[in-house]
Amino acid sequence: MPDRYRAKLVNSLSGFKSANLVGTADRHGQTNLAIFSSVIHLGSSPALIGLISRPDSVERHTLRNILDTGQYTINQIHSGIYLDAHQTSARYEKSASEFTQTSLTPDFMPDCTAPFVKESKVKYGLKLKEVIDITSNNTQFVIGEITQIICDNSAITTDGYLDIEALNTITVSGLDSYHTTNRLSRLQYAKPNQKPSVININGEPIENDFL
Amino acid sequence: MPDRYRAKLVNSLSGFKSANLVGTADRHGQTNLAIFSSVIHLGSSPALIGLISRPDSVERHTLRNILDTGQYTINQIHSGIYLDAHQTSARYEKSASEFTQTSLTPDFMPDCTAPFVKESKVKYGLKLKEVIDITSNNTQFVIGEITQIICDNSAITTDGYLDIEALNTITVSGLDSYHTTNRLSRLQYAKPNQKPSVININGEPIENDFL
Repeated sequence: MPDRYRAKLVNSLSGFKSANLVGTADRHGQTNLAIFSSVIHLGSSPALIGLISRPDSVERHTLRNILDTGQYTINQIHSGIYLDAHQTSARYEKSASEFTQTSLTPDFMPDCTAPFVKESKVKYGLKLKEVIDITSNNTQFVIGEITQIICDNSAITTDGYLDIEALNTITVSGLDSYHTTNRLSRLQYAKPNQKPSVININGEPIENDFL
Repeated sequence: MPDRYRAKLVNSLSGFKSANLVGTADRHGQTNLAIFSSVIHLGSSPALIGLISRPDSVERHTLRNILDTGQYTINQIHSGIYLDAHQTSARYEKSASEFTQTSLTPDFMPDCTAPFVKESKVKYGLKLKEVIDITSNNTQFVIGEITQIICDNSAITTDGYLDIEALNTITVSGLDSYHTTNRLSRLQYAKPNQKPSVININGEPIENDFL
């Protein structure tokens, strides 16, 4: 397969991906913002998040800043900012902040030198915990621990589930396709010898004889 | 925060997740099938896919079989099988195959001892490449190389992008919420000093003055 064709096909195989902007700053306060589709949940206690970085890609400013400062932010992308979010993947010079090149706005919080994205509705600060070299293809797996969460409290349901669909968080397929979502349902914790059971947005059982 | 509340909240923070069934078999041919929301693209050349395994979770049969045989399959979940896919997360005994407990059907292909899911529309076989211990929380990052791909050719567009939305592939948020998707658009490879530009499903430029 030709390289580009192969890249597009293989990038579609893992399924839908998360869509996030990673905010960093260097030691002099020069900000950087980059879109990542590889942000992944690792564990909730401690609250750990992973992402894949390619040393030779446009994301190298992000990795360098994370290694230099130990701090970064992750900001969910919603449908209102996805065009600007995509634009951060252009290969800007290190001296050009993506915040200047797009209409996204840096926002600073106490105890974090890295910029948040003001327009994002779910965002959190992280401190670097571990960087793992993946020898199979020379990528790096960057693991951080969440230090602060900023989101609209009204989107947190009574059992702790955050309704990111209601906040218009988007998802990515392949290299460049962006999607909104429609909930099929939440499902009750599965048990042997019980049929799957629908729960409501707050995690409570509801009538679901139709299953 | 209470443990379960915290788990639900933190699981929502990374954004939408992929939804896949991992098929394995032990040395005696006993099959296993488990839902994973942590399958992630690592690279296209070589074609590498990662997933996170917790040694003490219901997924331990999967990890044990992968380590024992070096082979596994990944099968995308579509809206027609998501209830059965969720049910595979119940804590069945090792002797009980999830293929027997649900209406999903094992399907075998040449050169792979692990079962595919017949009902899945995008699936691939992998050979184990690397297992990395994540010391931060005792999870393991399992990396495999794709050896064969089985999917409906009509879903592969002319530039290699696989239209997984057209195949009704679903996405997960939090621990238990399942979603279909609606494409906003595909976007052209971003360049500095050019506005984001919409492309069609085949990756070709289209009129988009409305941006």
